[in-house]
Amino acid sequence: MLADHVEEVRLVDHHVHGWFTEPGDRDAFEAALNEGSTGPVPPGRSGFDLPLGVALRHWCAPLLGLPRHASPDDYWEARAATPYDELVRTFVEAAGVDHWLVDTGLTPALVTDPEPRSEVLRLELLMEEVLGERDVVGAFRERLDATDAVAAKTIAAYRCGLDIDWSRPSARAVAGRARASGGRVEDPVLVAFGVHEAAARGLPLQVHTGLGDRDLDLRRADPLHLRPLLEAVDIPVLLLHCYPFHRHAGYLAQAYDHVYVDVGLAINHLGARSVELVAEAMELAPFDKQLYSSDAYGLPELHFLGAQQWRWAMGQVLGGWVRRGHWSEHDAIRVVDMVAGDNARRVYEL
Amino acid sequence: MLADHVEEVRLVDHHVHGWFTEPGDRDAFEAALNEGSTGPVPPGRSGFDLPLGVALRHWCAPLLGLPRHASPDDYWEARAATPYDELVRTFVEAAGVDHWLVDTGLTPALVTDPEPRSEVLRLELLMEEVLGERDVVGAFRERLDATDAVAAKTIAAYRCGLDIDWSRPSARAVAGRARASGGRVEDPVLVAFGVHEAAARGLPLQVHTGLGDRDLDLRRADPLHLRPLLEAVDIPVLLLHCYPFHRHAGYLAQAYDHVYVDVGLAINHLGARSVELVAEAMELAPFDKQLYSSDAYGLPELHFLGAQQWRWAMGQVLGGWVRRGHWSEHDAIRVVDMVAGDNARRVYEL
Amino acid sequence: MLADHVEEVRLVDHHVHGWFTEPGDRDAFEAALNEGSTGPVPPGRSGFDLPLGVALRHWCAPLLGLPRHASPDDYWEARAATPYDELVRTFVEAAGVDHWLVDTGLTPALVTDPEPRSEVLRLELLMEEVLGERDVVGAFRERLDATDAVAAKTIAAYRCGLDIDWSRPSARAVAGRARASGGRVEDPVLVAFGVHEAAARGLPLQVHTGLGDRDLDLRRADPLHLRPLLEAVDIPVLLLHCYPFHRHAGYLAQAYDHVYVDVGLAINHLGARSVELVAEAMELAPFDKQLYSSDAYGLPELHFLGAQQWRWAMGQVLGGWVRRGHWSEHDAIRVVDMVAGDNARRVYEL
Repeated sequence: MLADHVEEVRLVDHHVHGWFTEPGDRDAFEAALNEGSTGPVPPGRSGFDLPLGVALRHWCAPLLGLPRHASPDDYWEARAATPYDELVRTFVEAAGVDHWLVDTGLTPALVTDPEPRSEVLRLELLMEEVLGERDVVGAFRERLDATDAVAAKTIAAYRCGLDIDWSRPSARAVAGRARASGGRVEDPVLVAFGVHEAAARGLPLQVHTGLGDRDLDLRRADPLHLRPLLEAVDIPVLLLHCYPFHRHAGYLAQAYDHVYVDVGLAINHLGARSVELVAEAMELAPFDKQLYSSDAYGLPELHFLGAQQWRWAMGQVLGGWVRRGHWSEHDAIRVVDMVAGDNARRVYEL
Repeated sequence: MLADHVEEVRLVDHHVHGWFTEPGDRDAFEAALNEGSTGPVPPGRSGFDLPLGVALRHWCAPLLGLPRHASPDDYWEARAATPYDELVRTFVEAAGVDHWLVDTGLTPALVTDPEPRSEVLRLELLMEEVLGERDVVGAFRERLDATDAVAAKTIAAYRCGLDIDWSRPSARAVAGRARASGGRVEDPVLVAFGVHEAAARGLPLQVHTGLGDRDLDLRRADPLHLRPLLEAVDIPVLLLHCYPFHRHAGYLAQAYDHVYVDVGLAINHLGARSVELVAEAMELAPFDKQLYSSDAYGLPELHFLGAQQWRWAMGQVLGGWVRRGHWSEHDAIRVVDMVAGDNARRVYEL
Repeated sequence: MLADHVEEVRLVDHHVHGWFTEPGDRDAFEAALNEGSTGPVPPGRSGFDLPLGVALRHWCAPLLGLPRHASPDDYWEARAATPYDELVRTFVEAAGVDHWLVDTGLTPALVTDPEPRSEVLRLELLMEEVLGERDVVGAFRERLDATDAVAAKTIAAYRCGLDIDWSRPSARAVAGRARASGGRVEDPVLVAFGVHEAAARGLPLQVHTGLGDRDLDLRRADPLHLRPLLEAVDIPVLLLHCYPFHRHAGYLAQAYDHVYVDVGLAINHLGARSVELVAEAMELAPFDKQLYSSDAYGLPELHFLGAQQWRWAMGQVLGGWVRRGHWSEHDAIRVVDMVAGDNARRVYEL
């Protein structure tokens, strides 16, 4: 009953990106399997030689008519032989997602966004769009007032780290830093300004924490650095990804009524170990403060795989507790429903 | 045999607080289930929606005559219908604890301390009691000389963080800082002074590390920050709680002959995941350097639940190793006895 | 098939030390079981009361003709009754290692290095050998040019921490710091100089990270501190040990094409928990970036035990995934071969 339910429950993917508009070649495909690296796979190596690569051949191959664990060559061949719109439809439908919250700010020209969706507004990008204006503060506020995004997002972890002065900057300070920015938002004052403006409008705030690509210094992406911000705002703050600091994030979700966590991105990349990741994420965080996301980007396989691995992991973790008598099946199903989508629907008022 | 032994072994709970003098209402009860948060449970949410809430309904419900996994409403109803002294007796006796080491400094007016007990002296509180004296240093020393506590405790993690200058302050510096303290001990000099005075008297030192409520900055509660202190003193130093830094604590317990660890508090709050917590705590720490505690406070359920989850976790972890042939049953039982109470009896000379 | 293969595959131990030239007495033996502590085992305690002690009695006792889990006394008696050269041969042969990469810089007078071996050059030691020369920079470079070591190694974690300025120092700065060093290399400039000189010669660089003995500050041994160095060099960088930061190390191995990881040392000391350690190390790191090492030192048991626990752990982790259908047996065997030795043979061009 739990096993069936977790396989069938409809999801809200509360943090995701689009898939590539073009199927791309094999080099691009393999490079896209490695989140951390920023270049092509080096000669003599394979993008499949990652936990994600194995998981893809395990879970995705059958959707292309292949046996589980088809070889990388066979996988690529079947993928390349499938019309791209059919490939996309196959994986995206198999995800079982009812609603997508899309960060549209990452390479918008290269991707197609899923439907039905709500938009997540990338604050640093919005700021960069108005840096050239005479009244940067006013222009930023005007655009923020006009947005129909259901949430804002900060990638402070990439731009300046999370260990910054999170107090609310003055308009004057922002104007000065904007002039000195050279067109790119890396200044903590500009980042903090965007976050406080979004908070003042009651927008839920998504925060990139933990792993990402090598552009970030992982030491500075620990969500524990956010404490001064958490003390200063009272909008929902949604800690994204979090790995390997997901236990820190769970602690914050317990300590602060307005803090939420997910383990998106990591749930795709850890492959078979996503079971343990989900288990660790459930150590402290209240059940009504956990959300599902894939953070899929580029490859439509990832939109499906995140959902599939989350389903499998939740089934294993909760199912194990039910089998050993620690949880009732009723409780487990209720928590699945909360994390699958109910929490997201409530937080974002979908 | 191991399974029976771990269920029956008598415990020393080497770090615990009292239970509320009054049963309280449901709001207070639910709020007390969340260690991290400091206020009431927000409207529309439930204090049961935590790993601890599930564990309580699993392990505690039968002691109130309910089936396992009774609903929150049923649990509360049965609890409220039980005379409070009977409720307390039921849970406290079921803990199977022979001796309690009680931190009496936390809300003494609100709680009743368990018996038989030894006292743990909260250094910051003692210091605050003498801050108004003309000779603060002398008064502090006098009180410390007169104590019959078996251990001292520092909550430096809450007051100033563990990453402070741990060198021994001069009496003159202490006097100056005491005058500037405004009646509350947050100054690292005052904290370090208390710790060194206790150490000079040979008192074992309990140190709050890791998780707690949101008053602390978790980054500054990592026990690794204690290295300068560990290099400077040679009394037993007992790292409390430790999660999510319990692996760091285990490393210190291996590296320093006088360092001990427990995973109290976390063992209650992690619910079904306390098995993995205990397993991780056993990765590096010598077996004669690990102790049991519940860190229960307020709800008598927690005095029992900490013990019960520790028993279950030890049985699962060691039992698994015995089943796979990695440990002998004889060794496992011996280690259970060490952690259950023998180590505490030795360290505190009970 | 996987189970047999992982038991039989020949290994390259890519980071190891020699075994004691003399069998030593029981005190020395027990002290050598604790990596973290630096002195003798205190009176009344036993060096066997560690996860490593249990693992030794489990895996090593049968090679001395004892039943598994022989008592510490019986183990010591059988060990002492075995001619030392036979003892060494027994354990070292049972390791199933084809080739050893030996850090010859740790107490060379006390140990016998395994064969066949390649040498790993300890940079801080080389620097200390030339500190008295008039032209320190020239002498260092000359020796480095003459080495036939297949890799360099830095113990920056012990000498100054990994959180230093990793930019390439000028020869002039080095000369000045060398004069001020007092014969011991602890200055970050000297450490960084050695590393950059080795990198300029294309030598793979082994870096001690994570646990070790109490001479190091574990906070400063987190491999995440190495980011500036990783950005600056393009030789293979091999992160050693890593625990409890092995997830951080796995992240770096995914993010940087030239970063490799192992969990040597920890794999011995965690005993039965080495299974979970290996599982966590496989969460993000590409399979062609993981290596096997024991980091054995002193006791020939450790040269065997590291290998045996690695075999067991890989069999358990990969075997579990195969059983649950997440991995194919073919993939699992291929990854075993990569980590067992193929990756090391490729990186070090053995």
